[in-house]
Amino acid sequence: MTEYIGYIAGFLTTFAMLPQVLRVYRLKSAREISIIFNTSILLGVVLWLVYGAVLGLVPLIVWNSIGIGLVSLLLLAKLKYGR
Amino acid sequence: MTEYIGYIAGFLTTFAMLPQVLRVYRLKSAREISIIFNTSILLGVVLWLVYGAVLGLVPLIVWNSIGIGLVSLLLLAKLKYGR
Repeated sequence: MTEYIGYIAGFLTTFAMLPQVLRVYRLKSAREISIIFNTSILLGVVLWLVYGAVLGLVPLIVWNSIGIGLVSLLLLAKLKYGR
Repeated sequence: MTEYIGYIAGFLTTFAMLPQVLRVYRLKSAREISIIFNTSILLGVVLWLVYGAVLGLVPLIVWNSIGIGLVSLLLLAKLKYGR
């Protein structure tokens, strides 16, 4: 039961990034996105992946690999459309 | 060692939200922030807190409690300044 809560929590926090990425690309504007937010999240997600990989925790590896992709897309949008 | 990676990862992904919150309040604009991003993250962080509380994982409890506060502030900004 508790494990399922972790899976749902990971799904929600990872895929939350998808509508955010789509929104800035659609608006062609990322002025409001904080570059510190973006780079901190990216570095944090990379470290969560390392943490999961070292401990062999598959859900952490899966969610954070997807997360790295999504956050990278947001960072690209920020570099392209921010300011 | 691995534990420290988890602490740093949690610090980065939680406090990443702070400059993002400050930015939208300073700009008084949250048009680019996706409401789906905001509500999914909030629900996900609440579930991570439940997961951590059930398993008695103190770092998860600490990071996600702070996270709930920060994400709530971003949601308030979205409701106030979005669109």
